Amino acid sequence: MKIIIVGATGTMGKYLATAFEKEHEVIRVGSKAGDIPTDITSTESIENLFKQTGPFDALISTAGPSYVGPWKTMTDKEFRRGIEGKLMGQVNLVLIGQHYINPKGSFTLITGALAQEPVLHFANASMANGAIEAFVRAAAIELENGIRINAVSPTVIEASPQYFPFFPGDIPVTMRQLEYGFRKSVFGANTGQIIKPY
Amino acid sequence: MKIIIVGATGTMGKYLATAFEKEHEVIRVGSKAGDIPTDITSTESIENLFKQTGPFDALISTAGPSYVGPWKTMTDKEFRRGIEGKLMGQVNLVLIGQHYINPKGSFTLITGALAQEPVLHFANASMANGAIEAFVRAAAIELENGIRINAVSPTVIEASPQYFPFFPGDIPVTMRQLEYGFRKSVFGANTGQIIKPY
Repeated sequence: MKIIIVGATGTMGKYLATAFEKEHEVIRVGSKAGDIPTDITSTESIENLFKQTGPFDALISTAGPSYVGPWKTMTDKEFRRGIEGKLMGQVNLVLIGQHYINPKGSFTLITGALAQEPVLHFANASMANGAIEAFVRAAAIELENGIRINAVSPTVIEASPQYFPFFPGDIPVTMRQLEYGFRKSVFGANTGQIIKPY
Repeated sequence: MKIIIVGATGTMGKYLATAFEKEHEVIRVGSKAGDIPTDITSTESIENLFKQTGPFDALISTAGPSYVGPWKTMTDKEFRRGIEGKLMGQVNLVLIGQHYINPKGSFTLITGALAQEPVLHFANASMANGAIEAFVRAAAIELENGIRINAVSPTVIEASPQYFPFFPGDIPVTMRQLEYGFRKSVFGANTGQIIKPY
């Protein structure tokens, strides 16, 4: 299976790339590194990505830039980070990628528990997650030729201890749990699902 | 109570304004008409709105422009309609309005059942609704001084029969049900809730 991993230079993407490349052809995509560096905030850059990869079987996105910071001073400007990054970046990977993906292929996006369980300072990520989850449900009934779409929704992950203080009471998701969440989407048959890997 | 209704020249907003002005001071805001015409896709226009209204007790938004159309030809361009309108328009009403609202005031935004139950051609609205619902939950734990925020989530409304064919199996929400959904948010005590008026 030919699998594109967008966010492959980040903590999650790197782990998934290493896990999946044992049995599959993995194309690592980072914003400034990897096999095909791609700026997901640019539709031209995304078009260029797929022109280079050609037809593919699965796209995994773990690319989710959003703004983390105090609420009271948050304005349109800070909020745009999650709008352009985690939200429109991932939406455009699907809107454009649908014209390159093979029949029965799959998209798996990244969301997170913040959509349902907000924590202070992360309203921008909550918004992006809620948007991605509803988008995944809507896209699932539109995509044809057996093409599927799901999202994986971890809470804070064990490999990012710097975020633990923001998530009191959340048992960190292990990297193995995360990997298996993505496995369920890529190698399973479901579509329109928000997969909680815990 | 001083209530700002954004979207007051639309089908929902007009009904709510007429219902609430019997007992409250209502400021009607439309994109090009009403007491204070306001373009919610412009932060300058929103700032100007609140400078003119001064302190207020409740803001109701029924302003939700989004793109309706075929999935396969939908690109970033069409998707921006819901991003700038129903999503960032409403987010900015809160991010800016929080600096003008009275203690114990409330924001009530508009979302819709499409967040959970998509229909063909409305992926853009689904996305915006999911974003607004997660944003409302996040904002509820950030707002101080007893300021509350909720969203009302109707399905297709009885006053918009032109949309009935897109929503098979959805019993249209009556205008009275819609009004009472907003009443629950504005005059109740809950926060962070998605109110289904059916």
